[in-house]
Amino acid sequence: MTEVKAELISVGTELLLGQIVNTNAAWISEQLADKGISVYYHTVVGDNLSRLTNVLKEAEKRSDLILITGGLGPTEDDLTREAFHNLSGLAIVEDRSTIDKMEAFFSKNNRVMTPNNRKQAHIFEGAKVLRNSVGIAPGIIVEHEQINWVFMPGVPREMKAIMAEEVLPYLQEKLQLNTVIFSRMLRFIGIGESQLEHELRDLIAAQTNPTIAPLASEGEVALRLTARASNNAEAEQLIDDVEAQISIRVGQYLYGYDQVNIAQQVYAKLVQQNLKIASAESLTSGAFASSIVEEGGASAVFNGAAVVYQSLAKEAVLNIDHNLLAEHGTVSKACAEAMAEKVKHLYQSDIGISFTGVAGPDELEGQPVGTVYISICDANNQFVTERFQFKGNRQTIRSRSVKKGYELLFYHLQK
Amino acid sequence: MTEVKAELISVGTELLLGQIVNTNAAWISEQLADKGISVYYHTVVGDNLSRLTNVLKEAEKRSDLILITGGLGPTEDDLTREAFHNLSGLAIVEDRSTIDKMEAFFSKNNRVMTPNNRKQAHIFEGAKVLRNSVGIAPGIIVEHEQINWVFMPGVPREMKAIMAEEVLPYLQEKLQLNTVIFSRMLRFIGIGESQLEHELRDLIAAQTNPTIAPLASEGEVALRLTARASNNAEAEQLIDDVEAQISIRVGQYLYGYDQVNIAQQVYAKLVQQNLKIASAESLTSGAFASSIVEEGGASAVFNGAAVVYQSLAKEAVLNIDHNLLAEHGTVSKACAEAMAEKVKHLYQSDIGISFTGVAGPDELEGQPVGTVYISICDANNQFVTERFQFKGNRQTIRSRSVKKGYELLFYHLQK
Repeated sequence: MTEVKAELISVGTELLLGQIVNTNAAWISEQLADKGISVYYHTVVGDNLSRLTNVLKEAEKRSDLILITGGLGPTEDDLTREAFHNLSGLAIVEDRSTIDKMEAFFSKNNRVMTPNNRKQAHIFEGAKVLRNSVGIAPGIIVEHEQINWVFMPGVPREMKAIMAEEVLPYLQEKLQLNTVIFSRMLRFIGIGESQLEHELRDLIAAQTNPTIAPLASEGEVALRLTARASNNAEAEQLIDDVEAQISIRVGQYLYGYDQVNIAQQVYAKLVQQNLKIASAESLTSGAFASSIVEEGGASAVFNGAAVVYQSLAKEAVLNIDHNLLAEHGTVSKACAEAMAEKVKHLYQSDIGISFTGVAGPDELEGQPVGTVYISICDANNQFVTERFQFKGNRQTIRSRSVKKGYELLFYHLQK
Repeated sequence: MTEVKAELISVGTELLLGQIVNTNAAWISEQLADKGISVYYHTVVGDNLSRLTNVLKEAEKRSDLILITGGLGPTEDDLTREAFHNLSGLAIVEDRSTIDKMEAFFSKNNRVMTPNNRKQAHIFEGAKVLRNSVGIAPGIIVEHEQINWVFMPGVPREMKAIMAEEVLPYLQEKLQLNTVIFSRMLRFIGIGESQLEHELRDLIAAQTNPTIAPLASEGEVALRLTARASNNAEAEQLIDDVEAQISIRVGQYLYGYDQVNIAQQVYAKLVQQNLKIASAESLTSGAFASSIVEEGGASAVFNGAAVVYQSLAKEAVLNIDHNLLAEHGTVSKACAEAMAEKVKHLYQSDIGISFTGVAGPDELEGQPVGTVYISICDANNQFVTERFQFKGNRQTIRSRSVKKGYELLFYHLQK
């Protein structure tokens, strides 16, 4: 197949006012990517005839496949048909089958079909009507000067039905699609985006199929490998080859694939190794405990947590020595290790993990905001304790701490 | 002010692949609409220099204010600067203050700043640097041939901070905006969306300025009152008048305004009444404890929490009578009250609150998924205990439980 250049146009002032998020564009793009069709542009334009017409003109210059959602309804400000008519000169004709369907619908509901409704049956001469199995207004496909124009309602439910039942099968045949695009996400922790990109710079620059795209998110980074091939097996092979090269350089930071997250990986290791964990949390205040039970069945590995937000509670609940706190303070290696050890025993677990530090906004015990100690007391009562200096606001410092806790556990359980 | 024509450009192939929904465009549009600035186009384009440059050229022809998100990062495929340089011919210069900030950040985290990071400090000659209070890469505003170009990172958290703290104040002054659109959010709890709408139906229908828009979110409902006027005082007066009418009908459910949430209101009441609280959490597993410390200074009211995910822990940590659990089960009024009372004493608090129930996916002790008991043991050792049957998945049931806990506390502390 010759490579198809596609673009999407969403029509509706409510999108430009921010009253609706344009989820249609993401959904359609995903569908087309799965068929190996590359989308190069999304455009949103309001219910204005001249602006809409100009957007269509621009699209006509650069794309072979143009999908337009919205502006097909019965009201005055539904202008998509008029705009395309201005552009193409194609006559607007009434589709008899749609009129019949609408009349049946209205009589069935004992309602009178107001004249403006007939507009929803207006298509272009030579066009193919796209059946709408969940609503009234049909979609339209018309080929004009070697460009395929697809018109669909903006209502997500109707658009999705028409895409799945009519548009994709049409494109499959029309464009003789024989390409698949396959993506794999490699998830890393313990390495920053810029360092990862630095390590792989030459690979990223040289790769065209699969492509390598770095993506950063809170406290971790991912690489998306996207391969184009004639079938999935071939695409996966291309990806396996590049992943092998990547692993040689940064494999030690790779923790999982696709939708998996670090918490799930730690959870899985605890299950495999039949270990139970408990947490003692000061600045995180239960955020670790809450995140580890997000998946069902957490009781297999998680016994509970002592949230000891106050030093008072550190003494009363975890029975931490008052003198230790007086001597080292609560933001200290000594306190972190005591918390991990005590919570492990209190909750009769194999592993205890603790979080103590300064979330801010104010400094604490003379320690700056962002200072965090995390300690693991393992099944052999050995400690892994680290000090961190996180940046950002209170929320960020707390969430980074939890993420770091999972990172430390992941590497510790690796051994 | 002369009418400003604005448009948004979002840069990123992941948007065109449908892997990310373009929530930035909707959010920015809403902010600009609130300032009376009309957005005429949204465009999404991939990480491709020539296509990106062409999109900027198109925008230049038709808009006075162009906001661009994404493509400012340190990696090879961050091309927004290069594209604007191609278009404008403005030299790219390094911003010293950003370099200093980055070097400080890296040394503080004992990390090496790789060379590609310097790219994040590249701005255009004559440009204004927009401080990024939650990340590294700054935003940029530059006026070029009577057009204001605004460049921001694509990460929503960073973009929102830069918009609110830097861009909107700049535009307010630069464009001498003299229509204000002023919104006030009224937040309700303990009343459903449909009931609220029912109570206010005639008001909502009749109102044009301010408009009244009901918004539902997890477990609560809000009304957004939006007034258009020539100044804030006038707009606020319009809103005050309508709020007064609303309060007569449903004022008893109103708990706060704008960005305040129920947790903050409960926090404030605890501070006023000088009460300390602790939580005992089974299905919520620390989610309540984590949420109450989201604001700084939580230690004034929050002592800690016992996360007793296992019945074992309920006995070992909270010392709940084994026979009580055997007789009533852990998902019971009796267990909820024991948890609230025990945690109150263990953490030497004035109030204890407990959460026990079935988050799913499986039923527990013959109780269906969604069954939740919440109990408050107050300063006089009086109990407020309620049973709920929540719908939804594990996440929803847990977050609804926390929200309900705040609701019960709010009304209890009201008395």
